[in-house]
Amino acid sequence: MNVTSAPNAASRVQLTADGRLRHFLDIDGLPKALLTEILDTADSFRGVQDAQVKKVPLLRGRTVANLFFENSTRTRATFELAAKRLSADVLNLDIQTSSTAKGETLLDTLQNLEAMQADAFVVRHSDSGAAHFIASQVTPNVAIINAGDGRHAHPTQAMLDMLTIRRSKGAFENLKVAIIGDILHSRVARSQVLALNTLGAAEVRVIAPRTLMPVDVEDWRCRVFPRLEEGLQDVDVVIALRLQKERMDGALLPSESEFYRHYGLTQESLAWAHPEAIVMHPGPINRGVEIESAVADGPRAVILDQVTNGIAVRMAVLSMAVGGQTRDRARRG
Amino acid sequence: MNVTSAPNAASRVQLTADGRLRHFLDIDGLPKALLTEILDTADSFRGVQDAQVKKVPLLRGRTVANLFFENSTRTRATFELAAKRLSADVLNLDIQTSSTAKGETLLDTLQNLEAMQADAFVVRHSDSGAAHFIASQVTPNVAIINAGDGRHAHPTQAMLDMLTIRRSKGAFENLKVAIIGDILHSRVARSQVLALNTLGAAEVRVIAPRTLMPVDVEDWRCRVFPRLEEGLQDVDVVIALRLQKERMDGALLPSESEFYRHYGLTQESLAWAHPEAIVMHPGPINRGVEIESAVADGPRAVILDQVTNGIAVRMAVLSMAVGGQTRDRARRG
Amino acid sequence: MNVTSAPNAASRVQLTADGRLRHFLDIDGLPKALLTEILDTADSFRGVQDAQVKKVPLLRGRTVANLFFENSTRTRATFELAAKRLSADVLNLDIQTSSTAKGETLLDTLQNLEAMQADAFVVRHSDSGAAHFIASQVTPNVAIINAGDGRHAHPTQAMLDMLTIRRSKGAFENLKVAIIGDILHSRVARSQVLALNTLGAAEVRVIAPRTLMPVDVEDWRCRVFPRLEEGLQDVDVVIALRLQKERMDGALLPSESEFYRHYGLTQESLAWAHPEAIVMHPGPINRGVEIESAVADGPRAVILDQVTNGIAVRMAVLSMAVGGQTRDRARRG
Repeated sequence: MNVTSAPNAASRVQLTADGRLRHFLDIDGLPKALLTEILDTADSFRGVQDAQVKKVPLLRGRTVANLFFENSTRTRATFELAAKRLSADVLNLDIQTSSTAKGETLLDTLQNLEAMQADAFVVRHSDSGAAHFIASQVTPNVAIINAGDGRHAHPTQAMLDMLTIRRSKGAFENLKVAIIGDILHSRVARSQVLALNTLGAAEVRVIAPRTLMPVDVEDWRCRVFPRLEEGLQDVDVVIALRLQKERMDGALLPSESEFYRHYGLTQESLAWAHPEAIVMHPGPINRGVEIESAVADGPRAVILDQVTNGIAVRMAVLSMAVGGQTRDRARRG
Repeated sequence: MNVTSAPNAASRVQLTADGRLRHFLDIDGLPKALLTEILDTADSFRGVQDAQVKKVPLLRGRTVANLFFENSTRTRATFELAAKRLSADVLNLDIQTSSTAKGETLLDTLQNLEAMQADAFVVRHSDSGAAHFIASQVTPNVAIINAGDGRHAHPTQAMLDMLTIRRSKGAFENLKVAIIGDILHSRVARSQVLALNTLGAAEVRVIAPRTLMPVDVEDWRCRVFPRLEEGLQDVDVVIALRLQKERMDGALLPSESEFYRHYGLTQESLAWAHPEAIVMHPGPINRGVEIESAVADGPRAVILDQVTNGIAVRMAVLSMAVGGQTRDRARRG
Repeated sequence: MNVTSAPNAASRVQLTADGRLRHFLDIDGLPKALLTEILDTADSFRGVQDAQVKKVPLLRGRTVANLFFENSTRTRATFELAAKRLSADVLNLDIQTSSTAKGETLLDTLQNLEAMQADAFVVRHSDSGAAHFIASQVTPNVAIINAGDGRHAHPTQAMLDMLTIRRSKGAFENLKVAIIGDILHSRVARSQVLALNTLGAAEVRVIAPRTLMPVDVEDWRCRVFPRLEEGLQDVDVVIALRLQKERMDGALLPSESEFYRHYGLTQESLAWAHPEAIVMHPGPINRGVEIESAVADGPRAVILDQVTNGIAVRMAVLSMAVGGQTRDRARRG
């Protein structure tokens, strides 16, 4: 057992005593068997989604509350659809305009929502660690799903990427995967590296200019490339990250066109990768910044598959965590 | 076959190869049989609405996404209720505050929503032609319903007017119908004239001051009246349009009171119409501008019937278009 | 029969001819048997809530419209959950940003919503009497539930307090209950006093500085205490009100800390009450203003039970009023 899959504080919070999913906060500390179970469950929901009746009764009579402390229409929509396709009732709460404005503390807000007997909270927050904090505070009746917290993690995004890779490439064992761009501000790059290593990818690479590379990247179990050409050599999977313009507060980047010239995924630069390499992007894409339109709309892009897989992964995580919470509570009670 | 019902570009997009509804974008080009099928289907849903359990399972497990690029609480609410009463899951997306703010193109937004496997998009947009454009771009998996695009069309509004007329008057053949007011800025006047002609109304009239009359009105297959008195003579149906104050950018109108004096529907002016004439208005009404309160609240007004019929028509169009899309897709493979 | 439970104008509007709930606007005029029926029905829904499938099909196919003319995320969320757990379809309408901005009158808005065949309107409004006005105007097809109107009433809040008291203490007959704080601006204090008297509480007290006491409090059938120490002596139930900072327009209060010193519920001041007294607060709480954290989070607080009971009470009131409306309509029709 390696460092990545060793039980630690995060896994103790995320797992039940018998090792089932309890909360879904972070890839860190989750064993390979559990990540594989998420992918297998999500795969089964892909079949549901392709049917005309895209609904299963797994969470009928349960309540899923979307607690978005930070606006994200797209992520909120996919969680809302995932919950509804599990037959849950969904409550959308935009917390910025809500009780916190009346001077209520975050904990009071949470306790109130628990008292309304929500079964799961989907939490989006601008502070790193917010989802862990919430999971540490709630009663045993609620499962917490992290829908993105600060720069820390966005684990359902990482898992939908894993599902997309597995559905395209079959297995992780022989894959070389490159992640390109704004590693520093990305919620998801660290989660992706962890997931890929846990699932057994042959080699994980990150490609970025020095100013967009985190200082602790040496601890990440990946190879670091400052130049696109060397980084892309022979890779099977290319993941472009979104350039988070809204989070760039310093002068980290000369310009968007400069970034595109050196790190943009174009038909030309993509030629350096394996001829059958797939191209991924979490969206929304900035055409002509991270990626050329001919690549984004081309035959090797699986960007829209990622969206479809995102709903399947969120269905998997919601149903597994609410199931784990229920079993856990039954044993205690 | 006359010009109105001839197959043209719009009908080719709107209909399946075997002539069933595929998208609902515009009255233009839809044959009489199809408009009649919409009215018959809507009539059957009126029975559902009057029951205590106002729900049918026709779209169970399907997803209807309301894409409102322009705010319209009332129209959004009727589409939301229509979809829920068909047992669909509904996703409300206010696109102004969403991903487009992050620099995503409209097409990228649409492709993402398609990838979430919505079965129908209800589209409201301030640009004329937006719904057609979207229908021309989406994959075969999605049905597009036009909920109002610029000054171009608002076809469910026109069809709920037709349903209201048919439920009040029984048949179109002997009817004289007058449409009064701001023809120029109306989304719905052109759709109404087309629908009335296609359904066989005896005579269609538009009544407006010259400044609120479109320049191409001569091509509309209707009689044009600059004065209310002549226009209302002997008509069976009186449709007042809403004075779209928010869309008047020029000095087209001397004043609201001036408009009311010459074109307002009052008990006095209504006496020029047939004694059993019904009075319609798309709402929200401006009392004392387009219509006198005594008329709006009087026995000949069917304005609230229009609202009830609006939900039935939207149920009909949604269920028919999603059905047509499904058959079409099945045939393609 | 005493004044409180005598039939009056309010009860005539609220009850059907055979004495069943028709609208729920105000505690005033409702007989003890009806309040008890609400509590019994809510109690049965507490069992539903504690089950995994927290849903009953009582309002399947019915539509509940939340008409919030004033923002209140928490109250809206509890009504939304209550309606969904009764299997109703829910339509959330924020009326501020809606048609009223287009110059539509309140009555036109209501008639439109009625025409959409909503079965119940949950109304929140900043004007006292708004819910009564609306109930006096709507057709027999709609049940009106008051979710707070101005300073006048917030009857579901009062009933969830009664449910919380009854579930904690078993019966009202021997109870002494004290209500503390901003009686003047409270929507709920008057409703609480009425409900407690109707249900047979032994003694009701209000405790407040003179500036926060209504001038007509002498008519309220309660004992008035200007000082906390005397007011709390031997009481079984302590209800702290929220200091409605946003509604204080005059200089009624020296300062929050001054209020806390004299009226704050602390472990020290709570010692004046009965040793088994329970502590209630409608939330959101202002820690260190109305209540000390050690009390709010302590073993005698039932503040979160109030939230859970709030959903059960709203399920009870919605299902009873829609049932009463249906029976009433059947008899008329």
